[in-house]
Amino acid sequence: MSKFWSPGVAALTPYVPGEQPRQRMIKLNTNENPYPPASGVEEVLRHFSCEQLRRYPDPESLALRDMLARTYNVTREQVFVGNGSDEVLAFAFRAFFLREGEALAIPEYTYSFYPVYCQLYGIDLEKIALNERWEVPLAHFPENGHAGIAFANPNAPTGHAHSRADIKLLLERQRERVVLVDEAYYGFGSESVVPLIDEHPNLLVTGTFSKSRSLAGMRIGFAIGSRELIEGLERIKDSFNSYPIDPLASAVGIAALEDTRHYEECRHAIMATREATTQALEALDIEVLPSQANFMFVRPRRHDAVSVAAHLRASGILVRHFGTPGLSDWLRISIGTDAEMTALTDALAAQDRAG
Amino acid sequence: MSKFWSPGVAALTPYVPGEQPRQRMIKLNTNENPYPPASGVEEVLRHFSCEQLRRYPDPESLALRDMLARTYNVTREQVFVGNGSDEVLAFAFRAFFLREGEALAIPEYTYSFYPVYCQLYGIDLEKIALNERWEVPLAHFPENGHAGIAFANPNAPTGHAHSRADIKLLLERQRERVVLVDEAYYGFGSESVVPLIDEHPNLLVTGTFSKSRSLAGMRIGFAIGSRELIEGLERIKDSFNSYPIDPLASAVGIAALEDTRHYEECRHAIMATREATTQALEALDIEVLPSQANFMFVRPRRHDAVSVAAHLRASGILVRHFGTPGLSDWLRISIGTDAEMTALTDALAAQDRAG
Repeated sequence: MSKFWSPGVAALTPYVPGEQPRQRMIKLNTNENPYPPASGVEEVLRHFSCEQLRRYPDPESLALRDMLARTYNVTREQVFVGNGSDEVLAFAFRAFFLREGEALAIPEYTYSFYPVYCQLYGIDLEKIALNERWEVPLAHFPENGHAGIAFANPNAPTGHAHSRADIKLLLERQRERVVLVDEAYYGFGSESVVPLIDEHPNLLVTGTFSKSRSLAGMRIGFAIGSRELIEGLERIKDSFNSYPIDPLASAVGIAALEDTRHYEECRHAIMATREATTQALEALDIEVLPSQANFMFVRPRRHDAVSVAAHLRASGILVRHFGTPGLSDWLRISIGTDAEMTALTDALAAQDRAG
Repeated sequence: MSKFWSPGVAALTPYVPGEQPRQRMIKLNTNENPYPPASGVEEVLRHFSCEQLRRYPDPESLALRDMLARTYNVTREQVFVGNGSDEVLAFAFRAFFLREGEALAIPEYTYSFYPVYCQLYGIDLEKIALNERWEVPLAHFPENGHAGIAFANPNAPTGHAHSRADIKLLLERQRERVVLVDEAYYGFGSESVVPLIDEHPNLLVTGTFSKSRSLAGMRIGFAIGSRELIEGLERIKDSFNSYPIDPLASAVGIAALEDTRHYEECRHAIMATREATTQALEALDIEVLPSQANFMFVRPRRHDAVSVAAHLRASGILVRHFGTPGLSDWLRISIGTDAEMTALTDALAAQDRAG
């Protein structure tokens, strides 16, 4: 607390990112990809002309947006890029959901940064309970009088994803306010709703290079939507920071998108590992929610979740436990390599043996 | 305009960055450094382990903050870093100046992003006229009842800088609200007020790697101030984007700070070129304001400023003309290499000969 802070700053409850340990551990706590980025990324760094770093970047990031447009079969004008999808989401909440007297509808359990943005901007929230299968109940989103709708698909920390057809039904009922579908975890089995943007000018789809492209470090996020939504994002960005993307991030992002073979190999490996790990965990009497993401949301039955997380940490493995009421019996476990997941199941089995 | 935008988004007047031409021109319009970054930057890119890009960066950017702390002789807790000083400023305006019923005092002519942040957040502004020498009249800043004070030192687009002693006098009168001194153009002859932060917990100094470190492309900005001000910035950053700095930017920034010899050579070369160019322009009957920055603010007397800018563009040279009322007789010219500045003065002389 400081008298120099603007009113309200002391009351903010900032987002708490997953731990980045300074020692070597098996990191299954922040949904990073266990595989390195495309080999073209290294080529970019080895041959990049440093002289160009003395100049400001292209404020419009046209090269990266063009490559994203080709990848997602949309036009450049339908693509926005930012310094990680967290920044893109921060801009989107400001551009579309700050409507006095109207609340933004989000799932009760979803990416925990959404309520933080709402606090930052003073956006009211309406939280929609998940259904008994831990799914986002699309039919429960309000019809009218709200500031918009935002949810992750696949959702976090549960991993469940709705089909495109399901989300299309929601969009047919929601035409007055923006519907933001956060596809950070796209690439691991879910359907993208990007093909719906032409029909639904209020649909904004966000994405990231952090998960399926193995580039959490590079901070590249994007949004795809109608020209008018992208222009709304640009107005906020240009009132905040003209150049969120440096030329290295742009070149690295393009190289990652170009290597579709590497992308396919990594994501299929992760999906195969997820299925194998699901079976192994179930054999240890651990409940596993069906996941279309690169993580699993699991409930140990033989020990409480906190003690499992502590035991795993003592075994050199980090997983994520949320203190949030309603989630405290659960753990979110990122999908690593097969070897990492074997280390995980071995450690869990050892805890069972120790009683 | 779109019905999907939050109220007020349509009324925003975003910042307009200087042009980044796609063809090759002599760029004297965005105050970039004409010299390449330190050679250590290339080493970083050539040897960087791409595998680490699959992981999220250190959300606290400790390595870069430690190096900045050593460079500026402060502690890590007194340093904040962001994705360019534009982002750092955006966070600072939100953290300190959003006070209903109180206006932020800024110079009438200064970095034109300040009013944009104020529009974005709904901060009222009080603009203080420059004095007859185009200096920020520190004594004219209000004593009480304002939300804070922000100015650039050296100021832009004028280039004038106050001494540390002058700013200390201001700080002795201003103890209730934050005084933000934007030192983006530090390194070209002005004094820094960083040594005053221990005595003045309300002093926030911002800086950038874009100018004196030749890294406009890399998007690294920072703030130095008391622990309580840095904590205020962290609260906003962690409510917006946990990881604004990627590990390449961090490593590149550290390499740039390590090479003090390169830094000294570049900044002295720029100051020498500035003095030589000042004389050459005065010989062409062009008024030049005394500058302690890497640009000059000049008023052509033989032709109007718009026609000079157009003639220079036709000659392959970009300078910056501000349409702002009160500045339309002036041009802001970045300091390039000696060869670039000779090309500039040759082109100006040619316009004179052509009548």
